[in-house]
Amino acid sequence: MTESEATQHVSRFLSQFEELLTRQDILGATALFAEESYWRDLVSFTWNIATMEGKAGIQAMLEATLARVQPYHWRLDGEATVAGDMTQAWFTFETAVNRGKGHVRLKDGKIFTLFTVIQELKGFEEKRGETREEGMQLGTMKGRRSWLENKLQDETELGVSRQPYCLIVGGGQGGLGLGARLKRLGVPTLIVDKHERPGDAWRKRYKSLCLHDAVWYDHMPYFSFPDHWPVYSPKDKIGDWLEMYAKVMELNVWSSTECQKAHYDEAAQDWVVTVDRDGEKVTLRPKQLVLATGMSGMPNVPCYPGADLFAGKQHHSSQHRGGEGYAGLKCVVVGSNNSAHDICADLWEHGAEVTMIQRSSTCVVPLSTLRELGKSGPYSEAALKAGIDVNKADLIVGSTPYRIIHQLHAPVAQRIQKQDAAFYDSLRAVGFNLDFGEDDTGIGMKYLRRGSGYYIDVGGSALIAERQIALKNGEVVEIKQRSVVLSDGSEVGADLIVYATGYGSMNGWAAELISQEVADKVGKCWGLGSGTANDPGPWEGELRNMWKPTAQEGLWFHGGNLAQSRHYSLYLAVQLKARMEGLATPVYGRGPVHHIN
Amino acid sequence: MTESEATQHVSRFLSQFEELLTRQDILGATALFAEESYWRDLVSFTWNIATMEGKAGIQAMLEATLARVQPYHWRLDGEATVAGDMTQAWFTFETAVNRGKGHVRLKDGKIFTLFTVIQELKGFEEKRGETREEGMQLGTMKGRRSWLENKLQDETELGVSRQPYCLIVGGGQGGLGLGARLKRLGVPTLIVDKHERPGDAWRKRYKSLCLHDAVWYDHMPYFSFPDHWPVYSPKDKIGDWLEMYAKVMELNVWSSTECQKAHYDEAAQDWVVTVDRDGEKVTLRPKQLVLATGMSGMPNVPCYPGADLFAGKQHHSSQHRGGEGYAGLKCVVVGSNNSAHDICADLWEHGAEVTMIQRSSTCVVPLSTLRELGKSGPYSEAALKAGIDVNKADLIVGSTPYRIIHQLHAPVAQRIQKQDAAFYDSLRAVGFNLDFGEDDTGIGMKYLRRGSGYYIDVGGSALIAERQIALKNGEVVEIKQRSVVLSDGSEVGADLIVYATGYGSMNGWAAELISQEVADKVGKCWGLGSGTANDPGPWEGELRNMWKPTAQEGLWFHGGNLAQSRHYSLYLAVQLKARMEGLATPVYGRGPVHHIN
Repeated sequence: MTESEATQHVSRFLSQFEELLTRQDILGATALFAEESYWRDLVSFTWNIATMEGKAGIQAMLEATLARVQPYHWRLDGEATVAGDMTQAWFTFETAVNRGKGHVRLKDGKIFTLFTVIQELKGFEEKRGETREEGMQLGTMKGRRSWLENKLQDETELGVSRQPYCLIVGGGQGGLGLGARLKRLGVPTLIVDKHERPGDAWRKRYKSLCLHDAVWYDHMPYFSFPDHWPVYSPKDKIGDWLEMYAKVMELNVWSSTECQKAHYDEAAQDWVVTVDRDGEKVTLRPKQLVLATGMSGMPNVPCYPGADLFAGKQHHSSQHRGGEGYAGLKCVVVGSNNSAHDICADLWEHGAEVTMIQRSSTCVVPLSTLRELGKSGPYSEAALKAGIDVNKADLIVGSTPYRIIHQLHAPVAQRIQKQDAAFYDSLRAVGFNLDFGEDDTGIGMKYLRRGSGYYIDVGGSALIAERQIALKNGEVVEIKQRSVVLSDGSEVGADLIVYATGYGSMNGWAAELISQEVADKVGKCWGLGSGTANDPGPWEGELRNMWKPTAQEGLWFHGGNLAQSRHYSLYLAVQLKARMEGLATPVYGRGPVHHIN
Repeated sequence: MTESEATQHVSRFLSQFEELLTRQDILGATALFAEESYWRDLVSFTWNIATMEGKAGIQAMLEATLARVQPYHWRLDGEATVAGDMTQAWFTFETAVNRGKGHVRLKDGKIFTLFTVIQELKGFEEKRGETREEGMQLGTMKGRRSWLENKLQDETELGVSRQPYCLIVGGGQGGLGLGARLKRLGVPTLIVDKHERPGDAWRKRYKSLCLHDAVWYDHMPYFSFPDHWPVYSPKDKIGDWLEMYAKVMELNVWSSTECQKAHYDEAAQDWVVTVDRDGEKVTLRPKQLVLATGMSGMPNVPCYPGADLFAGKQHHSSQHRGGEGYAGLKCVVVGSNNSAHDICADLWEHGAEVTMIQRSSTCVVPLSTLRELGKSGPYSEAALKAGIDVNKADLIVGSTPYRIIHQLHAPVAQRIQKQDAAFYDSLRAVGFNLDFGEDDTGIGMKYLRRGSGYYIDVGGSALIAERQIALKNGEVVEIKQRSVVLSDGSEVGADLIVYATGYGSMNGWAAELISQEVADKVGKCWGLGSGTANDPGPWEGELRNMWKPTAQEGLWFHGGNLAQSRHYSLYLAVQLKARMEGLATPVYGRGPVHHIN
């Protein structure tokens, strides 16, 4: 099939699909899907982030939503492409209340995957391009107020004499990006952040920290890093960028403000949130509460017997500032994932005597390998040259349902193992416990399923292979005054212990801030329900509780890496805007709640 | 001629041109130009910003430069277009040392206009896109330094233990944009600015000030305003943007630093510059000194007899902060251009009793009219949709030589007069003295020729037409204790006098900072030499002394509105980089020096 034949084919197919949907012929529409088929919807049909699987799943969704959604005007967007037995195309469509984009994969004349994505609410579009504000009021009027006066008044009032519709707890990339989207949608939003300045959450981490994702993947919403921005941003540079972003996007951020307690007032249908604003107690009454406190959740600090007797310094990796001052000292790092490696390497660079304690196997991939792979990916210079900007790349990545995404990851993981065999052998030779995920699908799937269990190697592995960093396998069973005792009975001297032992689920924040009851009600965040380690089933098919309605009215979780925060903040912002405007937002396809942390 | 025929035609033409230039056949190449013809060159052939006129001018330039420049690889960039009797096309080319872009207009088979523009120096390209820095040093090394440590060290050293190659005086949009370009080119540059924070030069102006140029025209180099940015930026918003820009572009800016004195050390071939850095005297030794202190030069304050006896407040418009506190008071504004109108309107809005004193005629154009005209121009949403980004728009505007640019302006000026006839009549009815430039070419030409003499109406004109602002015509002949006396003998009571009387030429800054001798040596800045009011001849054909070598070794002038600063900073930056790298930079076509201010 030529490209032009394929385009005609998909175009006819879309027309047929539209006709059936318009006639509310659900059986007919469902019949266009293959036996194995997926319909991933981001808010446009379901007011949810959900993937329907198989004809039955799709039929059920349409039965619940079609009469209300009234989709129409399905139009191809660009040419269809053919790859193997699959014909793919992008399209646009509308519903009764929104405009959407979509992607379809046809296989043997049936739909294999369908992806429908809300772009904007009709009548509540962002003001941009031609519809942007004038910025100046032509003509003259006594008592005119300047932009600055209006801005200062808004800053003075919001959260004091006027309540925000939405309160975002956490002013990192997640909170700020979402805040920017809500600003453009005209949703009064306050962001509270415990740090002194936007960006401090990055600045305060250990000195050597750099993003391990390349720059093409990391843009914030609305304006991109300029094209000289380094591939891997140093943490302080990201900190400065976020501070600038908050300022030029005119976000209402309360810095040095700790969120202390929140509860949902069922009668008033809003939140009662107590914050400490630089020493002053303030009560806020937002309708919506977004926790953007980091997908990492609360630090996990294991309770080892004897830890309270330890005479050296000990802290969680999130509290570790860098290797300065540890020259010549014995430093033990518990853990073997990203932070553990980075901290070990940094301590070694500062002249410490470093031991890493590996408790379980780790997926390691050299950054240089990921960099090479990335060069032909959707977030790259090559993609930009092909007209694929970051927003298009987000949709490309989103178009593959989670159920089958591991099929894309597995061959890559295998290629890496082969290509970097010597590297992996050097690690095995010193007893480093490697894995590539339990189904050999590698680092990307580990991130999606559990958000942990891997190290992107920027140099730490060589230190381990060369025994510059000592490696111990096993669990810690006891901590003594100046040492750590392992399950094999061996004892490692220690002046410093860093617990690079990860984080709990994000609903830990809800437990801390709201109540254990609410945390249990909403259940675990993140994870797909793959039934692999740290991602217990049942299958959910989307990241649990992320960017979508939870079991607690008015409570939302926002987070992920810079790319996910950028992309999914769009859908979260639109859901919040719809609620503020009083649109009907019946949620289809809520997953079961998970209590396993 | 169809587009494809035109493309073939220009393509053949370019090949022929290239062949003649390669053979150094100057007469042959010159013969391809029409009798009336122009070759505008930005640095690529001439190491200057110069327009050669007619065959003789072009031949002379080629004789002086061709053997050295060795241009080659002239290639069409996109399709040619035909409009009337003109065939136009974009192209790229290279020389021995640089890569360039260009534009050609053919008329009757001959070159009418040729535009050659340097883009980058070979071997000294900016690192961007694929060649950007990695930002992280892979591997481990003891004593590694972080991005932040390196940045802080650079900030501590530059100007103290290590001299900048280039010193920019003035940290407004001009200085910062040029600084960003030099940063990307690796030219150690220090920017000194008298204000406390970048952006303060805008923040400190009168409250109601907004840009009168639309946003599409105003982007800084490298990263554009996001697409919700208001059409007309309020001054404080621009101030914040500039502050952010300095930070994220990592510019070395010394704020609260006043440049006091500079002289060129002929022996050492560098400048000796004394600055007051927040109370501390520091001597700097840059090789290059750029004055980016505002194209406006020093404030012109007329010396009226009796001014020293005035009992009210009097100040120049640049010192005027806004109308607050003047309610009920008699305020006289001397002048009738942009600042005068803005200040009158602002005083009126604050309840003052305002009189404008018009000393000479003014070109007035409603902003709304310019806005409508702009919608189909090269800086617009329409242009963006047609693939014309801001950099392309800059080249489009640059492609028309100054000698004939008034031919584009004249019909627009006439259209405006016709369309807004009622508006103009309302002003004439109250005695407002209007003009449209002495050759009826309107506001744009006034800006290029003299940078003054106009008002973009945002509401002030209606106040004048409705006599809310009193209008007086004539010169001020005397100032008394509480009044201003005009040439017709009338007297206007005054508690405040604002001198909205404009600015001198930028070389006034050189007189103040360096010496009158050097100011006279370089001569007047700005102006084309059109022989019209305030732009005395002889004809120069480019803006005098702007962004190009001056008669004083190592002294440069940078400025203009946001668009000109953005565009021409590229060429200034490349000229500075070439000198730093020791490339031969023989300057062709220096204009005569002008002493008339």
